Amino acid sequence: MKIGFIGLGTMGHPMARNILKNGYELVIYNRTIEKMNALEQVGAIVAHSPREVAEQSDIVFTMLTADAAVEEVILGEDGVIYGAKQDLIVVDSSTISPATSKKVAAELVKADVEMLDAPVTGSEPQAIEGTLTFMVGGKKEIYEKCLPLFNIMGKNSYYIGEHGKGSYTKLANNSLAAINLLAFSEAMTMAAKAGIDPEIFVKVVSGGGARSAMVENKADKVMNRDFTPHFMAQLLHKDLGLAADVAKELEISTPMLGVGKEIFQIAKAKGYGAEDMSAVIKCYEEWAGITVSKIKEEAK
Amino acid sequence: MKIGFIGLGTMGHPMARNILKNGYELVIYNRTIEKMNALEQVGAIVAHSPREVAEQSDIVFTMLTADAAVEEVILGEDGVIYGAKQDLIVVDSSTISPATSKKVAAELVKADVEMLDAPVTGSEPQAIEGTLTFMVGGKKEIYEKCLPLFNIMGKNSYYIGEHGKGSYTKLANNSLAAINLLAFSEAMTMAAKAGIDPEIFVKVVSGGGARSAMVENKADKVMNRDFTPHFMAQLLHKDLGLAADVAKELEISTPMLGVGKEIFQIAKAKGYGAEDMSAVIKCYEEWAGITVSKIKEEAK
Repeated sequence: MKIGFIGLGTMGHPMARNILKNGYELVIYNRTIEKMNALEQVGAIVAHSPREVAEQSDIVFTMLTADAAVEEVILGEDGVIYGAKQDLIVVDSSTISPATSKKVAAELVKADVEMLDAPVTGSEPQAIEGTLTFMVGGKKEIYEKCLPLFNIMGKNSYYIGEHGKGSYTKLANNSLAAINLLAFSEAMTMAAKAGIDPEIFVKVVSGGGARSAMVENKADKVMNRDFTPHFMAQLLHKDLGLAADVAKELEISTPMLGVGKEIFQIAKAKGYGAEDMSAVIKCYEEWAGITVSKIKEEAK
Repeated sequence: MKIGFIGLGTMGHPMARNILKNGYELVIYNRTIEKMNALEQVGAIVAHSPREVAEQSDIVFTMLTADAAVEEVILGEDGVIYGAKQDLIVVDSSTISPATSKKVAAELVKADVEMLDAPVTGSEPQAIEGTLTFMVGGKKEIYEKCLPLFNIMGKNSYYIGEHGKGSYTKLANNSLAAINLLAFSEAMTMAAKAGIDPEIFVKVVSGGGARSAMVENKADKVMNRDFTPHFMAQLLHKDLGLAADVAKELEISTPMLGVGKEIFQIAKAKGYGAEDMSAVIKCYEEWAGITVSKIKEEAK
């Protein structure tokens, strides 16, 4: 079986590498051509367009940053759809709106191509280790055909339901994570301004009902001022925008998401967009006139 | 050493019982007299006022529900302050505002009584097991004198700093927990309205960056409609009000807390105040026109 992979960024590159490592033939394409060099050197076949990838593949993965890129790569000029062989499966692991996912899947069906929306949780380290979690929308039998590949790139995969359900799940998940991060940022700033040693505060909250993966993963980054991105603030802001669109579509009320999105908008406007999402705490610190890491030093 | 305990509610009763079990003489007082019966039967000495408790004790614990009760019990007519022997220590484990904590401590100092603010994380089960976490404000040497008792009632205790610091820590902690709960409620409702099996959604979020103690502790309660209180929605609403007062005092900006407090106000207005705090999801469900547990059944 020959696998195609389009989009070799922070996530796509290690995902594709894991497929290659597990003995599959791999055809790759990336808009920035240099990003293909490293994989070409270890045996990947370089294609010159998404169409060429599709012509040579049984399953094509896409890992792109936005709705427009997914539409262009799959349905646009020289897109995957124009190179599709019989029984081609397209698996899109990008985080995009369910509406776009469903639209692209519907177009592909007209060309007898099956699609899955299969976004992931986890960031670069999990992509490298092959421990991502996939949440998958589309036909169940297509999910099952792709399962060996999900198992190579991830530690878990969940079949959620028809087209778009993977995307809905991913956006609700990221909205939850983002609000947990804001909850931590707000409480951490409150404690620090009250003169509480941030390290002790983290210990207290980690021992009870206030603990979360966000406290666990981000407290050290904040205290050590290490905002090198695991997941960029501007990408989370994009996801919150998509989640807000979903709320509108489903006619539900999401006040915490609404406020949270605005705070990430402010973080972006202040120039923190390309930093780790935990850099959002700098907004709170500026509003409070303190810096958590300085309070930590003073507490020593 | 003789210990006093005032306030024998859901938390106070098991905390007092653990002190007694560990061989200390215990003097108790509760406004509702019947609540003292069970402890009297196992050897506690019943007093008729906070003053009488103080007259017989070396350390007096208070575990009450609000600022006014703490002021009355300690400083009011027949209050602890009027029965204080030399070297009495008052340890208040109630969740109250740091301003009240500091005020009461200052009044006690005038009468040569030392005080600690020592609120706890954990609810009834942890109080019973003696696995609470104490966060303590006041003089360090007084904290150290009380440490054996914290170790009986809790698995951890943290000395945070001067008077009021325990209360600040507790309110920031509860604000964080409340926002995490709202984040879960909002995302769970979004997923359910999109037709995603709530059980699968919980599995997905529990495996990644969106996981939290609130998802862990509350998902089953929501799916099984078991809103018997571990911690009542109206008490959390009270704590969010106190946290908002702290934000004002410290001149910090807490938009998530602000919105979250309003949602718990709505939950209270709808009549969910005496249910578990997880009942706040019923607000979201009503706004969305769905019930998470029904979506779960339909998914089977």
